[in-house]
Amino acid sequence: MAAHLVKFDAVAQPVTVPTGTLLSEAARLAGIELGQPCGGQGRCGRCTVQVTSGAVRRRSTLRLSDEDIANGFALACQSVVEGDIAVTIPPQEKIERRLTTDRTVADVEVPVGYDPSLHQSIRRVVLRMEPPDLDDQTDDWSRVQTALRQQAGLTQVSISLSLLRRISDLLRQGDWQVTAIIELIGNPFGQILQERLVGIIPRIVFDDEPLWGIAVDIGTTTVTLWLVDLATGEVKAQTAEYNGQIARGEDVISRIIYSSQPGGLEEMQSRVVGTINSLIELACKRVNAVPQEIFKACIAGNSTMIHLLLGIPAQHIRLAPFVTTINDIPSITAAEIGLVIHPGAIIDCLPGVASYVGADISAGVYSTGMDDTDKITLFLDVGTNGETVLGSREWLVTCACSAGPAFEGAGVVHGMRATRGAIEEVWIASPNSQRPYEPTYRVIGGVKPHGICGSGLISLLAEMFITGVVDKAGNIDLTLQSQNNRIRTGEHGAEYVVAWGSESEQGNDIVITNVDIDNLKRAKAAIYAGFTVLAEGVGVPLELVEQLLIGGSFGKYINVEKAIQIGLLPDIPWERFQFLGNTSIRGAYYGLLQQAARDKIRDIASRMTYIELSADNSFYEAFTSALFLPHTNLESFPTVAAALEKQPLPLLSGESTCT
Amino acid sequence: MAAHLVKFDAVAQPVTVPTGTLLSEAARLAGIELGQPCGGQGRCGRCTVQVTSGAVRRRSTLRLSDEDIANGFALACQSVVEGDIAVTIPPQEKIERRLTTDRTVADVEVPVGYDPSLHQSIRRVVLRMEPPDLDDQTDDWSRVQTALRQQAGLTQVSISLSLLRRISDLLRQGDWQVTAIIELIGNPFGQILQERLVGIIPRIVFDDEPLWGIAVDIGTTTVTLWLVDLATGEVKAQTAEYNGQIARGEDVISRIIYSSQPGGLEEMQSRVVGTINSLIELACKRVNAVPQEIFKACIAGNSTMIHLLLGIPAQHIRLAPFVTTINDIPSITAAEIGLVIHPGAIIDCLPGVASYVGADISAGVYSTGMDDTDKITLFLDVGTNGETVLGSREWLVTCACSAGPAFEGAGVVHGMRATRGAIEEVWIASPNSQRPYEPTYRVIGGVKPHGICGSGLISLLAEMFITGVVDKAGNIDLTLQSQNNRIRTGEHGAEYVVAWGSESEQGNDIVITNVDIDNLKRAKAAIYAGFTVLAEGVGVPLELVEQLLIGGSFGKYINVEKAIQIGLLPDIPWERFQFLGNTSIRGAYYGLLQQAARDKIRDIASRMTYIELSADNSFYEAFTSALFLPHTNLESFPTVAAALEKQPLPLLSGESTCT
Repeated sequence: MAAHLVKFDAVAQPVTVPTGTLLSEAARLAGIELGQPCGGQGRCGRCTVQVTSGAVRRRSTLRLSDEDIANGFALACQSVVEGDIAVTIPPQEKIERRLTTDRTVADVEVPVGYDPSLHQSIRRVVLRMEPPDLDDQTDDWSRVQTALRQQAGLTQVSISLSLLRRISDLLRQGDWQVTAIIELIGNPFGQILQERLVGIIPRIVFDDEPLWGIAVDIGTTTVTLWLVDLATGEVKAQTAEYNGQIARGEDVISRIIYSSQPGGLEEMQSRVVGTINSLIELACKRVNAVPQEIFKACIAGNSTMIHLLLGIPAQHIRLAPFVTTINDIPSITAAEIGLVIHPGAIIDCLPGVASYVGADISAGVYSTGMDDTDKITLFLDVGTNGETVLGSREWLVTCACSAGPAFEGAGVVHGMRATRGAIEEVWIASPNSQRPYEPTYRVIGGVKPHGICGSGLISLLAEMFITGVVDKAGNIDLTLQSQNNRIRTGEHGAEYVVAWGSESEQGNDIVITNVDIDNLKRAKAAIYAGFTVLAEGVGVPLELVEQLLIGGSFGKYINVEKAIQIGLLPDIPWERFQFLGNTSIRGAYYGLLQQAARDKIRDIASRMTYIELSADNSFYEAFTSALFLPHTNLESFPTVAAALEKQPLPLLSGESTCT
Repeated sequence: MAAHLVKFDAVAQPVTVPTGTLLSEAARLAGIELGQPCGGQGRCGRCTVQVTSGAVRRRSTLRLSDEDIANGFALACQSVVEGDIAVTIPPQEKIERRLTTDRTVADVEVPVGYDPSLHQSIRRVVLRMEPPDLDDQTDDWSRVQTALRQQAGLTQVSISLSLLRRISDLLRQGDWQVTAIIELIGNPFGQILQERLVGIIPRIVFDDEPLWGIAVDIGTTTVTLWLVDLATGEVKAQTAEYNGQIARGEDVISRIIYSSQPGGLEEMQSRVVGTINSLIELACKRVNAVPQEIFKACIAGNSTMIHLLLGIPAQHIRLAPFVTTINDIPSITAAEIGLVIHPGAIIDCLPGVASYVGADISAGVYSTGMDDTDKITLFLDVGTNGETVLGSREWLVTCACSAGPAFEGAGVVHGMRATRGAIEEVWIASPNSQRPYEPTYRVIGGVKPHGICGSGLISLLAEMFITGVVDKAGNIDLTLQSQNNRIRTGEHGAEYVVAWGSESEQGNDIVITNVDIDNLKRAKAAIYAGFTVLAEGVGVPLELVEQLLIGGSFGKYINVEKAIQIGLLPDIPWERFQFLGNTSIRGAYYGLLQQAARDKIRDIASRMTYIELSADNSFYEAFTSALFLPHTNLESFPTVAAALEKQPLPLLSGESTCT
């Protein structure tokens, strides 16, 4: 058998291997440890390398495009050496981006052409005034009004009582050289309808100093906050935390019930404000900003969250005929709801559509651009509520269902938010591999794992299903033989150990239980039922959907293949999927920057036709059918059926196994 | 000596008296008790009768006009019978109106032509809505907006957060048949700039039900409140009470100082709001109204009072260069300052001019109409602050001085507000009468006296001065012999007993002390100095003043003659004086009814030229000169000089004395 030289770019000396050696084995001989989470079965694509000279024989090209193959990419665990070759090992994150089923959330980019002097309703105006004297006893506010007129051309600026209470001190503190923060409220035609004095900074602020605003998404489970420099549009800090209301119920229904008791509404209001305030503090600390100098907030959230934030009773949202008190909220000030930013800061709560399709969805639709395309688009917002929007530039229909918080890592024993220490992807080795049922995982931040986030749970459940750890009903198979009793009966019944205590940050085993799987199943079934009922309702078969956009508070990555395998997403070609992350916060961010975006979101909210699923029996039927993995009707999931049938390729004689 | 028949209308039988009998004696013989407070000296005019047939000889016609004499009016104590006569005794209050030096405050009349549908910015709109159902899940606020548009043509109505918090309950309480209270905010040209939803009454309110509003005048010493039915314009209840801030200082300066300490501003704010709230409760109780159904307030007051009401720091009002934070206050809501009326009720604080000339004066000027006449007018507002406005349609100048609260009955040992039980006028018998130095008084409500109000104090001090009980320096002459030791040394030094304990409500002596007189002197000197300095400053001699209007929280009556005698008012012909009572509350009342009045008051405030007396030495000189009774320069007070010289006429032989 011939021997061949294999030269890896990262290592000076080539290694010599016989014909038929797996590239992954050659790498190991060269001292290079390639990640092979799926146990060398060619499923995960993580061991992709680039052959820059010579040729290999690819036993499988799963996950590789024709272009990739032309460029020499190969799966190291599925390719054998048949001559002298040179190999480049791409950085891991480069590989991840290549994998067509993995979509990463784009970084936040300032909208092209953002010009605060045109788009931003918050303006900074430096005022240089003469102090009063006995010959000029003009009152303070008239003096400011004159300066605004003469120095900024603003003639109709209004002031709040709370600012009036502080303005005389601020003017004197600044020795009559101050910076006024003004909010201009216009109509969509560019006319200024109102000019409001938001605050006075008792010094001259220069143009290159940041002008702070916040975008907030209040999810039922997760509250996300971005701290933005309105002067440049840049996101300077991103923070997220579980909604403090979780302690009083996991979904909107239980929150509404709790808030309907005496004192409940006030408690709910103060809990969510408390969460936002702690996020503000955290974000400000990171960039050394002062909360009191945040002058604007743009807030998205579902209708219940917005009602509770504002202290508006929400009980009619829960009871037929399911109506909100208000969908399009007038601007309010921070002081009115107790946010710890500048008390006069204007809070714009974005407009929602109906009781169960709130501002998070209208903002989300705006951020996806689906309202402005000819392509038939299905937009799924995967959160505690699963909302679906179907349509295009011409029409938009929407519905919602209650999924529960499992995909946000809540209601799952070792669930957590998609933050540092969260397992965000899992691979489980095949039953017939050398390490049957052994998992490999990727942790956000590359640290010891602390728990499992939403994308990790999807990935984990899919792997458990494909490898047979759970059956199609979602039951863990306790009869399986696994190393170290990884599949076992725990406190909450059957469970699978994802990470041993010795590997985890907190020192205890990280597991997923049958109860967790039930919650995940219910969540994915609700979402799947929602969009299928909607699509059927309007007579658009899912195959006709040209793009399927997925929003939600997952991590940066989601594995579409795995989401299909558990039956969360429909089994249509992967390239039609796009994972967008938190579309609601993104919409709030655009709304924070541009009044035109707020107007557009209002327009979108008014255009969407809301379908009430609570009044629809077909939803319950669809939900029940979707409680299986991936679905009662496996025919709707041909690629999953194929994956289940597919056995790992038998080893050829002379080939080494990758371990 | 001939005998004559005297027939009184009130008595069936005529009496027979000899020639030369005083009419008052004839009345006594007929069994009629005529009031003769001045002891029959012809000074008070209270014994005026009308001789309807026959003739009398008038020894004095003081206080009687030529027309009065032609109509047979005569002073009973100064007229002798010289033939058969018939006499009518007018009702006492008819006499009071005849006495040209006594001016009574006109009753409140609804402005001519008041039409709420044209003038009132608060409107009631009945809304009849279909309840939501599964085919119409419109949110509550959109449903209300649609009804407002379709049923009232209102397209731009805004709503506050606090009302949003209650609207869903109110709509359901009223079973979707409710009454909306709307405030229309327009410009002086009749354009509607803003439409605000103030409140929702959860039932259909009919047009003939009252629509409540309040007018409030916040004086440094006295807070006055009128409860008004905006649907008709009628004042339904009038209440007044001392400002609860008095406990923290008698004048604006001490209030400002107190409010500048930590917590002081909040305390001052809550004290005055407490006073207003108790007045609201009282007024509502009287007419069986519900405070929560008061939907508008219009408030006047001096600049310090308005700042403290709103919780705006007032310290810069006190310190040179004496500037306010704001003169023209934007509309606020009741909830923002804690008024117990409807929380969304709009509060319009009327605009002021400067630190020491506030909204009470601009409102007062409007209510006098001096801004709209060709006559040169001097307007004095006699309160804790003495403000003066001089001018006409063409020009208006104004100044202010600190008078102290004596004329409102505060800072005086037995002072009280002009309310039931207050002595409002006093007459003291001459030294050479049968009851030397004995007083007679009139009590508001005709009950036992409880104290002395401002007009009573003016009257009392003038009588004491004219009868020699006090000298021109204001010192009580303890050497005088009076009945029952009425002039005596008391706990606080020299004092004069106005009413014995046996006569008074509370059973103790009602007195005036030398200290009280000092306070009254200082108050009148400040006011006199204020208007003389102002008149001199603009070069208008007081003689040229065509009308002199006096406002202030006195009682219903003021005796101009006596006010001149103490040197509070200038010695110009009585007919030029007009006593207007509380002009500030009247201005607030007009402002409450008509937006046009608010616009006019704003215009007046902007037109007035303010003269700062604190920066004017001539004020202090004028003040010092005015500390005497009536003034250092007696030549400026010719009628007072004459009164002092005038001795009661000696009795003619054969005449009887009136006792």
